[in-house]
Amino acid sequence: MKLSKSVWQTYKEIPNEAEIPSHQLMLRAGLIHKLGSGLYTYMPLAYRTIRKIEQIVREELDKIEAQELLMTVVTPGELWQESGRWEKMGSLMLKFQDKADRDLCISPTNEEAITDVFRKSVKSYKQLPMTLYQINTKFRDEIRPRFGLMRAREFTMKDAYSFHMDKACLDQVYDDIYQAYVNSFERMGLKFSVVEADAGDMGSKESKTHEFQVTAETGEDIIIFSENGGYAANVEKAETIRKGISFNKDGGELKEVATPHMATIKDVCEYLKKDQHQSIKSLVYSIINGEDEEVVLLQILGDDELNELKLKNYLGAEEVAPTPEHKLAKMGLPKGFIGAVNLPLEMRVFFDKAVELDASYVTGAMKVDAHFENFCPKRDVKEFDVFDMRLAKKGDYTLDGAHIVDEKKGIEVGHIFQLGDKYTKSMNVTILDNNGKAQNPLMGCYGIGITRVMAAAIEQNHDESGIIWPKAIAPYHVYFALIGKSEEIKEEATKIYKSLQEAGIEVLFDDRKAGPGFKFKDSDLLGLPIRLVLGERDFKENGQLEIVTRKTNEKQFVDKSEVISKLKEILEKL
Amino acid sequence: MKLSKSVWQTYKEIPNEAEIPSHQLMLRAGLIHKLGSGLYTYMPLAYRTIRKIEQIVREELDKIEAQELLMTVVTPGELWQESGRWEKMGSLMLKFQDKADRDLCISPTNEEAITDVFRKSVKSYKQLPMTLYQINTKFRDEIRPRFGLMRAREFTMKDAYSFHMDKACLDQVYDDIYQAYVNSFERMGLKFSVVEADAGDMGSKESKTHEFQVTAETGEDIIIFSENGGYAANVEKAETIRKGISFNKDGGELKEVATPHMATIKDVCEYLKKDQHQSIKSLVYSIINGEDEEVVLLQILGDDELNELKLKNYLGAEEVAPTPEHKLAKMGLPKGFIGAVNLPLEMRVFFDKAVELDASYVTGAMKVDAHFENFCPKRDVKEFDVFDMRLAKKGDYTLDGAHIVDEKKGIEVGHIFQLGDKYTKSMNVTILDNNGKAQNPLMGCYGIGITRVMAAAIEQNHDESGIIWPKAIAPYHVYFALIGKSEEIKEEATKIYKSLQEAGIEVLFDDRKAGPGFKFKDSDLLGLPIRLVLGERDFKENGQLEIVTRKTNEKQFVDKSEVISKLKEILEKL
Repeated sequence: MKLSKSVWQTYKEIPNEAEIPSHQLMLRAGLIHKLGSGLYTYMPLAYRTIRKIEQIVREELDKIEAQELLMTVVTPGELWQESGRWEKMGSLMLKFQDKADRDLCISPTNEEAITDVFRKSVKSYKQLPMTLYQINTKFRDEIRPRFGLMRAREFTMKDAYSFHMDKACLDQVYDDIYQAYVNSFERMGLKFSVVEADAGDMGSKESKTHEFQVTAETGEDIIIFSENGGYAANVEKAETIRKGISFNKDGGELKEVATPHMATIKDVCEYLKKDQHQSIKSLVYSIINGEDEEVVLLQILGDDELNELKLKNYLGAEEVAPTPEHKLAKMGLPKGFIGAVNLPLEMRVFFDKAVELDASYVTGAMKVDAHFENFCPKRDVKEFDVFDMRLAKKGDYTLDGAHIVDEKKGIEVGHIFQLGDKYTKSMNVTILDNNGKAQNPLMGCYGIGITRVMAAAIEQNHDESGIIWPKAIAPYHVYFALIGKSEEIKEEATKIYKSLQEAGIEVLFDDRKAGPGFKFKDSDLLGLPIRLVLGERDFKENGQLEIVTRKTNEKQFVDKSEVISKLKEILEKL
Repeated sequence: MKLSKSVWQTYKEIPNEAEIPSHQLMLRAGLIHKLGSGLYTYMPLAYRTIRKIEQIVREELDKIEAQELLMTVVTPGELWQESGRWEKMGSLMLKFQDKADRDLCISPTNEEAITDVFRKSVKSYKQLPMTLYQINTKFRDEIRPRFGLMRAREFTMKDAYSFHMDKACLDQVYDDIYQAYVNSFERMGLKFSVVEADAGDMGSKESKTHEFQVTAETGEDIIIFSENGGYAANVEKAETIRKGISFNKDGGELKEVATPHMATIKDVCEYLKKDQHQSIKSLVYSIINGEDEEVVLLQILGDDELNELKLKNYLGAEEVAPTPEHKLAKMGLPKGFIGAVNLPLEMRVFFDKAVELDASYVTGAMKVDAHFENFCPKRDVKEFDVFDMRLAKKGDYTLDGAHIVDEKKGIEVGHIFQLGDKYTKSMNVTILDNNGKAQNPLMGCYGIGITRVMAAAIEQNHDESGIIWPKAIAPYHVYFALIGKSEEIKEEATKIYKSLQEAGIEVLFDDRKAGPGFKFKDSDLLGLPIRLVLGERDFKENGQLEIVTRKTNEKQFVDKSEVISKLKEILEKL
């Protein structure tokens, strides 16, 4: 493409609202334009990248014989009512009514629609397993859309759905798709981790689910992983153990000590000269199920944090939240000095698995400005349960104790789930098995945030000057800048541009009337893998052009006759 | 693709609601599934066709250096308010509000959005002309969606927009896009007409606008065309003349005759022994502009019909409609016997251009059961205007009188418009011209109904057994049916299937357990260009396969070794 006739434009200013590099760089590099809150137009260069991402995903899914179709963006409410999700989906789903007062929504996901297609089309177990997918527009009515494409309201997603007669078959296809995702992200040239994840409302506890996380400093997710690669999980889901910390096993009697104005673990432990893990952090949580609310007491090691998701899952709660301070006061629970001894009311008590129940700890004495020393859970608390409720962290060990784990940040770009029979049951889908018995098939669902991948790629690949596109998803491969004004050199440049196109090189031709500083800045900002420069002075002197690799800033001069072969050679290696 | 593992399924029943062949055949051939009113899932085979149509259009637009981008499906109301179309778009536009009570809609078209992109990106006349396009989902909230994809609510459209400093440049790009459309539809193998059309609310009267109509018996549009190809227009727009009819020029005095119970032109003319064109048809119409309603009298030849659009355009009305009977009665206008003489109230009178004003006609005498003979407009009506208000029809002549015209039916699949400065003015977009003066650029807009093309292709190309796909947009080229049960023949078929794939032939492999009757029926219904049959008996006898061309039903046997070269040869010619 010739830039002189293109809609491409870069911008110097970064809008205040753009907080993260991908958002800033995409706006500055003119890749996207904001049309409204959380709504972005993908400009031609960005759309080339999106189509490359789509094509890679499509090819990898086609390889495993997934079948591509296209469902509607707008789906009827009655389907969601049938599955029971019309109310459950919450306010992220944009609902409205048409002229005939029929309920409609803009699909945030398509389990219902695909299940409806399936039940109309497939009758025999012999057709299974079957994987269907689409690449389509989705909408989520985020209250506060932000981070550009990372949390836009409208976005492009690849969503796939598989159908099976049994779990073994689901596992097999799940693994195939897992591999197709690995292949896709590898082909895109991205560094990523596949991590165990929490299924949330999507599946049962036994269902497998994994996230594909592009690693980047700005990622919103924390990944816990072992250096040997054997373990990786979203911190929300990660199960690890602590190792190498010592507890006091021969503590004496429970002893109250005055701790005036010391309401934090840190202050109390410093004052009493204890390691923080030798204290117990008491957390009071509200467990909410519909109209019901139960208040419970959680006991974790002083230097640990609670993983709310583990709490929610363990108690099968709809929602969990710290009980607000004014409620604590009403219940006679003195914030900062709460403990499991002398509870003023009946409440269930839970200890984290990392607490050694027969060791001695510092804990709140249930009155202001006082703590206990030598609190021994086993001895001092009558009734309690134990489960893993702590947030995994760097320095923990894998469950078998063999490997230390570390943390890194990631951006979720893919998520695969085993759904089981949730939708086929609620929507009454049956298939006759080989004994002629009607069965609800099992399902899996598999998503890739296509437009999010583009943003994540930039988060991972940029420097202070701009984007550094991985070759496979760069809008073009070569930024060909003409530096010169004479008609002669323009003609020469146009000839070279055409010869590159003919040689199958994806080239963007900067034929605009502008100086080298301007063009090089734009080139660095846009971040195509290679910059090719035809400088009038150099070229007239020695017939050479300059090639600069964006990533390494490596520069070399080549004769005009060698430009194509040299570019191909460099591109091959990238 | 192997059918045994595919989601493809044909159906015997035609749902009552499917009135036209494309709707019936697409449902029966399992190409689409209805999800809700006017909402269809494109199944894998249909989606292949859609992607082929998209790709042809894309390639032809890329050739003329149009730039592809992607706008959002959901657009903010404020943009439509800015252009003034938020209210004007009417109820076809699905509007709703998001969580934050912001107005949104699902785009039925994108002039506002593209104009916003343009004003944020383009500053100099040097960047023009510029053509931007997208292929995206659109939504129109039809009250009564019907005819399947022909009038679905959600559909895929290619919409392009061009920007220019002057009309000459707009004309040039308009012609380029016209040609790109011609190329596209030709490549798709469709028979079509390019016709002059009415710009409606989209442009001014001087603006060019053309429709691309795929000809088909079931088309909703009527095309008026001259046999020599020099003239073609939508009947709504067509301007023609009548020729070779004689009028009575020496009629005498106005003479009232009794015509008891003869309230139709036909009855009266038979009774008075006149040709129908020797009578005047009087039509009373309400011309509506906002709250205002004016009633006018229209006078056309007895065997002509009114073209309401011409009336609407001539009077610059928002709406025109026949004045209802109860209103006529109130005004003292006796239905069936109305004429321009003895008008009981003041109203404007308009004659159609085809009426010879000094000839004599039969007309209503403005009282029940009576007509006038020898009505001479010039003599008998005081004040009137004349314009072309009749509906063109078969047997008319082109305006120069040189060519007779005929009628055919068409399906509109493309429409191109010159918009002028309508949007750049209302949305305050200016570009500095080469004198540094700010100007509102001119725009053109250009649509192709991608999913409608698929339906139109089927309307044009089918027989009683099913679809007959044009090669370029067929889901696959070859339907390879295995007729046989032994493991040996299955292996042989699989080998042939693979060799076809390797030879780059797009092949669908019917490896299902089913008999020849079933498979041939499905094959004819789906309508791929070629059917290749491996029949166990024949093959064992002489090592031959059968090739059947869907369109001509031509059959031939070929040796296994020649299958690929023969298929390629036939495909080449299709």
